[in-house]
Amino acid sequence: MPRKPALSADASPWAPPGDRERERAAKREAVLRTAARFFNQKGFHATSLDDVANALNVTKPTIYHYFANKDEILFECTRRGLGAIIEASRKAAAQGGTAAERLRSVLMAYAMVMLDDYGICVARTQDHLLSEPSRKQFRALKREIDALIRQVVAEGAADGSLRIRDVRIATFTAAQALNGLGNWYNPEGPTSPEGAARQVVETLMDGLSAKA
Amino acid sequence: MPRKPALSADASPWAPPGDRERERAAKREAVLRTAARFFNQKGFHATSLDDVANALNVTKPTIYHYFANKDEILFECTRRGLGAIIEASRKAAAQGGTAAERLRSVLMAYAMVMLDDYGICVARTQDHLLSEPSRKQFRALKREIDALIRQVVAEGAADGSLRIRDVRIATFTAAQALNGLGNWYNPEGPTSPEGAARQVVETLMDGLSAKA
Repeated sequence: MPRKPALSADASPWAPPGDRERERAAKREAVLRTAARFFNQKGFHATSLDDVANALNVTKPTIYHYFANKDEILFECTRRGLGAIIEASRKAAAQGGTAAERLRSVLMAYAMVMLDDYGICVARTQDHLLSEPSRKQFRALKREIDALIRQVVAEGAADGSLRIRDVRIATFTAAQALNGLGNWYNPEGPTSPEGAARQVVETLMDGLSAKA
Repeated sequence: MPRKPALSADASPWAPPGDRERERAAKREAVLRTAARFFNQKGFHATSLDDVANALNVTKPTIYHYFANKDEILFECTRRGLGAIIEASRKAAAQGGTAAERLRSVLMAYAMVMLDDYGICVARTQDHLLSEPSRKQFRALKREIDALIRQVVAEGAADGSLRIRDVRIATFTAAQALNGLGNWYNPEGPTSPEGAARQVVETLMDGLSAKA
């Protein structure tokens, strides 16, 4: 025989546990996104958690409900940026086609992340801003991205679809050019984020020289 | 009739005025160069003038004899880097040859500065670190460099030696790739500074793709 439904308080002012989890996650994300924008605009040192709290209409203790300190917030922001690059690059690298085609996709995916708040935060965060344990993780994630791109570059040197003198230098050149995207891209200008990203990637792939 | 030589104190413990001027300038340079290295390694906020003074075997008041504050020192470091780029780029841009050849020279000159302490300092200094008046000058110098490169890029689009979709985007792509040089170049590695600079410039000019 089916059990009777448990006593329930339909009109409870508390959201059910699943909703509360989602709400908590959404609030945590809002803190990170807002903090990333402040860090990007004012710099990490000049940003106070009061700035972030005020922008979200809460008080600083509310922020501490989600994060231990400003360092953790900065690290989490960069982790989101680096994580997005890793995920998008892996997907792009796993596509078919020549290594040159895959590199184009990887660089495009990378470029799009670098135009996002978290990507800009990655580009502007210098190692020494982070605490020692965060810095280690930050560097490990960066090395993972570097290895992902190098792999495709090396494959392109092998399959002849890329002309590579030095895998390491080619990888750094491409990554650094893309890291700068958020520094000069103007969202109010005539070019879409995707259009700007595509042009930088085409420039890197095809070069500035006209071909004879 | 020749005048008798003025009375002179050959053994004066004070250096003659010209020497003193040069000595003062050399000491000022030593403060800047040392500060640039600290800023690059530890970051601007984490560097104290005591660090710089200790490294030079002097006390902080000696530093204040040459500079009003840490902001002035940072700005002067970046001014040396930006000034060196402007000077080298102007010289390279004034050479003969196609715009593509001149762009190659300009980018090479730019790259070499970016491997120097002052160039690295330029790449790592975000606008918000500087005081308002310094920031204005910092931005003006950067605009001057941007205009110099854009000019050669535009000439290359006109004379057909460069293949340019968008002068602004092409210029930023090249500049950002070079700005990053000091972040990854390892002076203890097998590649000379000039070799690394040349490979990045060749990559930018020729592209990563193998040509059909």
